[in-house]
Amino acid sequence: MNKSYLDLVNECDRFPYYYDDPVYYKQYVANYHRFKISGCNARLGYIPNDVVKKFPWPKGLWEIDEDKRTVTLLAAHDATAEQRTDLLARTLADAVKEDTFQVLRGWRNELYPIYGPDKKLLASVERSGSNLFGIMTYGVHLTVYVKGEDGIRMWVARRSRTKQTYPGMLDNTVGGGISTGEQPFESLVREAIEEASLPEDLVRANAKSVGCVTYTYIRDARAGGETGLLQPECEYVYDLEVDPSVVPKPCDTEVEGFQLYTVDEVKTALANGEFKPNCSVVLIDFFIRHNIITQENEKDYLEIQARIHRRHEVPTL
Amino acid sequence: MNKSYLDLVNECDRFPYYYDDPVYYKQYVANYHRFKISGCNARLGYIPNDVVKKFPWPKGLWEIDEDKRTVTLLAAHDATAEQRTDLLARTLADAVKEDTFQVLRGWRNELYPIYGPDKKLLASVERSGSNLFGIMTYGVHLTVYVKGEDGIRMWVARRSRTKQTYPGMLDNTVGGGISTGEQPFESLVREAIEEASLPEDLVRANAKSVGCVTYTYIRDARAGGETGLLQPECEYVYDLEVDPSVVPKPCDTEVEGFQLYTVDEVKTALANGEFKPNCSVVLIDFFIRHNIITQENEKDYLEIQARIHRRHEVPTL
Repeated sequence: MNKSYLDLVNECDRFPYYYDDPVYYKQYVANYHRFKISGCNARLGYIPNDVVKKFPWPKGLWEIDEDKRTVTLLAAHDATAEQRTDLLARTLADAVKEDTFQVLRGWRNELYPIYGPDKKLLASVERSGSNLFGIMTYGVHLTVYVKGEDGIRMWVARRSRTKQTYPGMLDNTVGGGISTGEQPFESLVREAIEEASLPEDLVRANAKSVGCVTYTYIRDARAGGETGLLQPECEYVYDLEVDPSVVPKPCDTEVEGFQLYTVDEVKTALANGEFKPNCSVVLIDFFIRHNIITQENEKDYLEIQARIHRRHEVPTL
Repeated sequence: MNKSYLDLVNECDRFPYYYDDPVYYKQYVANYHRFKISGCNARLGYIPNDVVKKFPWPKGLWEIDEDKRTVTLLAAHDATAEQRTDLLARTLADAVKEDTFQVLRGWRNELYPIYGPDKKLLASVERSGSNLFGIMTYGVHLTVYVKGEDGIRMWVARRSRTKQTYPGMLDNTVGGGISTGEQPFESLVREAIEEASLPEDLVRANAKSVGCVTYTYIRDARAGGETGLLQPECEYVYDLEVDPSVVPKPCDTEVEGFQLYTVDEVKTALANGEFKPNCSVVLIDFFIRHNIITQENEKDYLEIQARIHRRHEVPTL
């Protein structure tokens, strides 16, 4: 394999853009129903038509409009976020009981937030079911690196071979999803301890918030479970420069091990498709911010920058 | 004044987005004709309808289609970029002779490139006329800063009071447009010498390419000349950390002087609307990359990140 950086971005940001081809865009979007919650006008996510068909929608809880291609959760006008969360949980419970969807076999007992256009929490939904609704999800990614005379070296993780999603692929030093109620930096500190055994004080004092990458992923076979599910994502990105004495170590069962890669080794692994797709995007952003990928050496520089900072069609935090 | 960061982004990225409101978007776009060059299918820019009406289009050189709202330069099928450039120059020469447009009074004798979707140079056009066609333009911005125990301090320029565009406003340490044939980094080195008297060796060795910001500006009164002209832009962004002994000095007549601002002083000047609009965006990007603006302290973090990395509707380099 010899994937270009744009190839890697294309694998991660897969939903079409209206401006490129309005006709194709409309045809493509017709494969999805918009997910809505009554009382809120915004589309909160996109559900593939075949998922809409298979879903054992509990009677009275949902309104499916085949003409408008909308699926609307019928919450009371004055419902609280907790009440809407309950309705979503009841909906998923039925699907779990009937084993309708493979993705729900990976139940996480972790709630992901759904925000409205006013950035207020509308509801939460179990993480493993979030992709069925195609809602916006949030995560954190940290690149731990060492600067030496020979340039930058980066700590790269190898995902556990028994992990449900992307087993055995390369990963950023630390990464994880943000649950309802959690702030990005606190999520990062937690993950850095859990996944890489990094000292909390070190992370709190030295990890720098350096931006975010946003894109719309469409799940393929490597993600496990149903394919074609939409995943609009935001990953908050952090850099942590450490001295060579700091060595990340696996702590939970998510990571097999860590290895220090030169920039050239990371480039080769990227070109070989060894990284989990969204980790490629985080590394490309790192390279852009660190004078490694420039307009002069990368013909797709502008397209890459715009695509990894996608403005989403669904409300974001 | 107390402008938020999103207010400042809104002043710079002003063209609507289809996804926000398809009906409004279509109404808005109907105020413009698309600029095309025969033989290339892409829209290369947007020309306001009243500019199309006023323009003394040389007979036989242009096809105006009022139904499709297109303005097409009729270049020969096998024309070279130089030949297309000549046709554009002849077109502008007529407008200059008749003094049709105020923006052309600021003739620069500097060519800006027009790229096709294949990233090949299609033609070039005089800088002061580029806004009439609403083509994509490219520039460089450099933030020179000092890191001390009390945090970051940044060298801020004050634009000359006699400058044609944005007189007397605050500016980044170094900034400038990229002409046809020039590479971004070489453009930066040239501007750093011309505008800020920075030593060439220092800039070449230490200025770091850290990304780009992209947005679609619509010219207002402060820009001078006609208002409502579209300006899709890309600014390549560079950071240069220096020690306190390095002091930028005005060299040409563009800059009145330089002053070292603390981060809080820059924040105040931004909130007061003292910076040229696109400089605000470059500074916001600097703050995001340097752990100063974060999701935790900025409610519009995601919207800002997406908007300052806009994916343009016209072909980009």
